[in-house]
Amino acid sequence: MFTLDRRSHVALPQQLVQQVVLAIRSGALKPGAALAGTRTLADELGVHRNTVNAAIDELAAQGWVEKRHGRATRVTTTLPIPHDVEAGATRGLGFGVRPWPGSSRAFEAVPKGVLDFSSGLPDPRLFDATALARAYRRSLRHSKGRLLGFGHPAGDERLRRALAAQLSARRGIPCTEDDVVITRGSQLAMHLLALALTRPGDTIAVESPGYPSYRDAFTCLGVRALAISVDDEGLDVEKLATVKTPLRAVLLTPNTQDPTTVTLSARRRLALLEFARRRRVPLLELDTDFEFTFEGPAGLPLASQDRAGVVVYVGTLSKALAPGLRTGFVVAPKELRDTLLAVRGQVDRTGDAGLERALAEMLEDGEVQRHSLKARRVFLERRDLLLELLRRELGDVLSFEVPRGGLGLWATVSRSVDVEAWAARALNHGVRFFPGSAFSPTGRKLHALRLGFAHLNETELVEAVRRLVRARA
Amino acid sequence: MFTLDRRSHVALPQQLVQQVVLAIRSGALKPGAALAGTRTLADELGVHRNTVNAAIDELAAQGWVEKRHGRATRVTTTLPIPHDVEAGATRGLGFGVRPWPGSSRAFEAVPKGVLDFSSGLPDPRLFDATALARAYRRSLRHSKGRLLGFGHPAGDERLRRALAAQLSARRGIPCTEDDVVITRGSQLAMHLLALALTRPGDTIAVESPGYPSYRDAFTCLGVRALAISVDDEGLDVEKLATVKTPLRAVLLTPNTQDPTTVTLSARRRLALLEFARRRRVPLLELDTDFEFTFEGPAGLPLASQDRAGVVVYVGTLSKALAPGLRTGFVVAPKELRDTLLAVRGQVDRTGDAGLERALAEMLEDGEVQRHSLKARRVFLERRDLLLELLRRELGDVLSFEVPRGGLGLWATVSRSVDVEAWAARALNHGVRFFPGSAFSPTGRKLHALRLGFAHLNETELVEAVRRLVRARA
Repeated sequence: MFTLDRRSHVALPQQLVQQVVLAIRSGALKPGAALAGTRTLADELGVHRNTVNAAIDELAAQGWVEKRHGRATRVTTTLPIPHDVEAGATRGLGFGVRPWPGSSRAFEAVPKGVLDFSSGLPDPRLFDATALARAYRRSLRHSKGRLLGFGHPAGDERLRRALAAQLSARRGIPCTEDDVVITRGSQLAMHLLALALTRPGDTIAVESPGYPSYRDAFTCLGVRALAISVDDEGLDVEKLATVKTPLRAVLLTPNTQDPTTVTLSARRRLALLEFARRRRVPLLELDTDFEFTFEGPAGLPLASQDRAGVVVYVGTLSKALAPGLRTGFVVAPKELRDTLLAVRGQVDRTGDAGLERALAEMLEDGEVQRHSLKARRVFLERRDLLLELLRRELGDVLSFEVPRGGLGLWATVSRSVDVEAWAARALNHGVRFFPGSAFSPTGRKLHALRLGFAHLNETELVEAVRRLVRARA
Repeated sequence: MFTLDRRSHVALPQQLVQQVVLAIRSGALKPGAALAGTRTLADELGVHRNTVNAAIDELAAQGWVEKRHGRATRVTTTLPIPHDVEAGATRGLGFGVRPWPGSSRAFEAVPKGVLDFSSGLPDPRLFDATALARAYRRSLRHSKGRLLGFGHPAGDERLRRALAAQLSARRGIPCTEDDVVITRGSQLAMHLLALALTRPGDTIAVESPGYPSYRDAFTCLGVRALAISVDDEGLDVEKLATVKTPLRAVLLTPNTQDPTTVTLSARRRLALLEFARRRRVPLLELDTDFEFTFEGPAGLPLASQDRAGVVVYVGTLSKALAPGLRTGFVVAPKELRDTLLAVRGQVDRTGDAGLERALAEMLEDGEVQRHSLKARRVFLERRDLLLELLRRELGDVLSFEVPRGGLGLWATVSRSVDVEAWAARALNHGVRFFPGSAFSPTGRKLHALRLGFAHLNETELVEAVRRLVRARA
């Protein structure tokens, strides 16, 4: 009646349990029916008697069978007699799972061998992982288990203190560890902010063009994203000021606008801060590229000029160190912070305190700063190489400003070229890039494209541009 | 006009930039107004001239001032003249942050020196962190940066494979790495499932009493939780079957019910699977305590008996290893899995691939299994000590079944005792426990309490019970 498969990765007693249960559920074994003795079963199945005993104990513990002293084990008499579940049984119920909104585009894996211009991420190959591993080991050893329990939902206090010191000294944002909330990268920061600040049906203002994933953190929750255009002075604050719809937040990248890399002008910073104060709208300032300003000094964030407490500042260590470490941070007014922590509790409770402590040590030792300075030099060389290659090879179709900062280049494409078609062909030629439309909240076609250069070394850049040229024809 | 504070943690050039910007914003410096020369400013402020130059460059880069060759730098003439923002400026805008729903109770930090019965977590002090640190170092070294980039949203493939092998062999859930999604602990799993399966206004069924955090993952998103009572056979499936409201999911802990530790009977497993198949309702099976079955063999999960693909299985390594590692997993039908991955992309993109690879190695080496067996022995001793202490010291007010598994004890309290008041007094006596009401979806008072024992060593247990006794009077 039963047969066990020794090649299966399911253990033998487990197999027997499942088969008995299925026999009962299919009606083949009726309530009250006696099972063969364990010795008989063991012989039939060609297994050791202990295997059968383990299975019987398991079945009895779950109430499928009743063991009776000195008599045959039988199927529990009180079990309801089920009809055959096989009839009409279907794998997968059509749970009515809703198709998830928001452009999944940014998350498509890059096919093997494809050189990827589509991401603005740094090159993790530059990062000295052993220093991190050492710090991680030290932090776990010294913590005697404390870092392996649940940590504070705001994150490791030492990391918050180290970040606060950095933000104060280098970014002009006076803050302490109490003002900082550590998150799983800037993406979780946006998700928590979306849950804390908005409800389905609310409206926020976003940059057009703008980085899709941050926008999607809101739209995927049913929030409307109102597109405000970006020009060579950054977000068009004058246009924003004319918006009548109540706004729950303004999402922007004022320092190195993503993807255009323009800097929000002083004029507009003034107007924007004033707008936020009057309309009581929080400004969500994303400043993920702070370390990578190549021309002139790094622009101070909007948050450093915020007297009215309207700016929520979001940063990350993904660019200064490595994206895989998933460590971002938020500086927010207390009322919002408290809600963020409550939300965090329901979303994933807390971060990885051991890793956070290790990163704190690396910040305290200046390890992080040293790394990002080194990376900055490398990325500047890569940027300049890319600029040179593009001028030489594609100067007739691409025009661009030298990006003041950031890890991507934004180029205007001559109207003679169909950018979408070029991007599609490029993938077949083994190079991926996002056409401007990927950054347009409305999906509108733009005669532009974005090339992220930081994670491609010089050989790869040369080859990638060669493929771009081939794909163009 | 400006004064710099050398004791401030804000760098001097940054301070000067901020003060100039504020002078402009307050109207003290009008558009077109000339700044003093850098030498003069440097003398006035008693700083090096380079400090002033850095500040001026910064201000010019942001467009606040205009540098003019051979002439005084002046405030940009095109700046709009702002009225004094200080007038009526308030820190904190009353963003209209919504108070976050759901019992935050489970997330209250334990005051120093307080012995905590309120959590069902294991004891991270038992965990050999150096083994983890070693594995982490190895995985980072071998990956050459790959593990520091963005990983697959489903998690490291090797960890998924190792988990799938365990689930197949030990839990009777035949699956491969493709069926598994790694999450940040079981809490993120519930959050992702809530987003994927429900919308505000939907209804799910939950156990009463039941674990609050999993329930809250849904209710905090505006989902209604319908309380179905739990008796000595587990969730009352007969009552569930009478529910007319369309249900989007049933949340349950069939194997070691949290908090009562009862096991769902075979009779009800049959009825429940049949109910789910007919009503097309996914069963979210939480099986976080699998490793800690103390009496008899570990009950096979509902998922091992699921022929119709109605069970979504959620487990975690938080209990087998340590909560701080935040590593849970979901086994779900493909249609749901695809949505979970899309949701994950918007929530926090991906996990920590380096840590996941390290855990994969520890599973492959049998390190995890060895640890959880060791922990199981220790926790069994602690359970038995607690039972003995309670029988001796509180036998007159507490009655309980010996829990077959799980890391908490559920006890009925005699009606002569006000449990809530006892819990409040206990905190003052330096011991915390949750009264039954903490687990009631309706907040109803129950004559019961839960004592999590696994993370308290024997000395701590003795002292904790002594404090319980003192607090009782």
